[in-house]
Amino acid sequence: MESSKKIISNPVINRLPRYYRYLDNLLKNGVRRISSDGISKLMGLTPSQIRQDFNLFGGFGQQGYGYNVAQLHEEIGKILNLDKELPTILIGAGNLGRAVASNALGGSNGFKLIGVFDKNAENISQNIAGLPISPMSELEAFCKENKPQVAVLCTPTESAKELADRLISLGIDKFWNFTNYDLLVHHPEILVENVHIKDSLMALSYRANNSSERK
Amino acid sequence: MESSKKIISNPVINRLPRYYRYLDNLLKNGVRRISSDGISKLMGLTPSQIRQDFNLFGGFGQQGYGYNVAQLHEEIGKILNLDKELPTILIGAGNLGRAVASNALGGSNGFKLIGVFDKNAENISQNIAGLPISPMSELEAFCKENKPQVAVLCTPTESAKELADRLISLGIDKFWNFTNYDLLVHHPEILVENVHIKDSLMALSYRANNSSERK
Repeated sequence: MESSKKIISNPVINRLPRYYRYLDNLLKNGVRRISSDGISKLMGLTPSQIRQDFNLFGGFGQQGYGYNVAQLHEEIGKILNLDKELPTILIGAGNLGRAVASNALGGSNGFKLIGVFDKNAENISQNIAGLPISPMSELEAFCKENKPQVAVLCTPTESAKELADRLISLGIDKFWNFTNYDLLVHHPEILVENVHIKDSLMALSYRANNSSERK
Repeated sequence: MESSKKIISNPVINRLPRYYRYLDNLLKNGVRRISSDGISKLMGLTPSQIRQDFNLFGGFGQQGYGYNVAQLHEEIGKILNLDKELPTILIGAGNLGRAVASNALGGSNGFKLIGVFDKNAENISQNIAGLPISPMSELEAFCKENKPQVAVLCTPTESAKELADRLISLGIDKFWNFTNYDLLVHHPEILVENVHIKDSLMALSYRANNSSERK
């Protein structure tokens, strides 16, 4: 870590994307300034929590004037490193892989999709984000030449362990994991961000049947 | 809420699906008993946290013998109401809608998909989970006849506000929301579970560039 950067705690890191998303919506709606009270009402956080979080990054607000939305949006984007283009490959060109590539991996987001692989590549003629689907047999040669740093796993969970071992041996150490396989059990040294879509559905199931516990 | 049920706090509710997922994997791997230490190592929670959580549901463990995996799996499934079949419709039959329907909405999960709608239904011949894709113009008649309680939103964010207003007026009060529209701003009375796939990608972007902060 660069010495000029502050250490930001995990809960704050997890709030940053939410801030960024709300600011993005405000910008699109032409809102130029907003107070911490205003953000508070939108996001369901307390104004003091918001001020505390924003102070961590140098406090972009002015007392009585509120925050400059565009500036705050840009600063948080920089903190999140959304201007980077980490070379990224997608494994799994099914509906989920396609949805993830088109909904999340397009635009400035910190990553650049440079390859897509699928074990049934020969049956898939449709490109993803302008990239052809390559067979898994080409993975080694591709990684040697293009040195991707990040892999997005959109395969069935059953194949995830073998696949992760293979990708890690090829030098990939950052994963965006949509499978239910827990990569950190065998590879504590890598970085993994999991998306467990079904966990969210189960939480909805609980709350849908216990309605008095809604917040 | 039924008086026989205990109130479970939000952090515990959010851990339940993870427990369920790990227990499901253990069952599939033939593990019949596990100690809180064993679960702790798998999940990265402290053994005392796990015992405390499980005690809330009546404590299924036996000192020195550990937990019966199948029984714990079943009990947590019941707490999550995965045996229910809340009538559910999906709006948006693109890649994301298809991925969500096939990866999450199949099987016993508390919900039963009874209808799929898309504004371009006439161009989509491929069924989803055995259901044809209906045009949006049929939404009112369908809801009157079939009374769905839950809607899964897999549409572009731009159309989400109008769509949510329409669905709520048709009696739907539970949403699994994949758009970036914040439904609770205009409808605080409904139940919403959000999946913000991009938030996870932004957190990965932060951590990928601040490697010393990996946990």
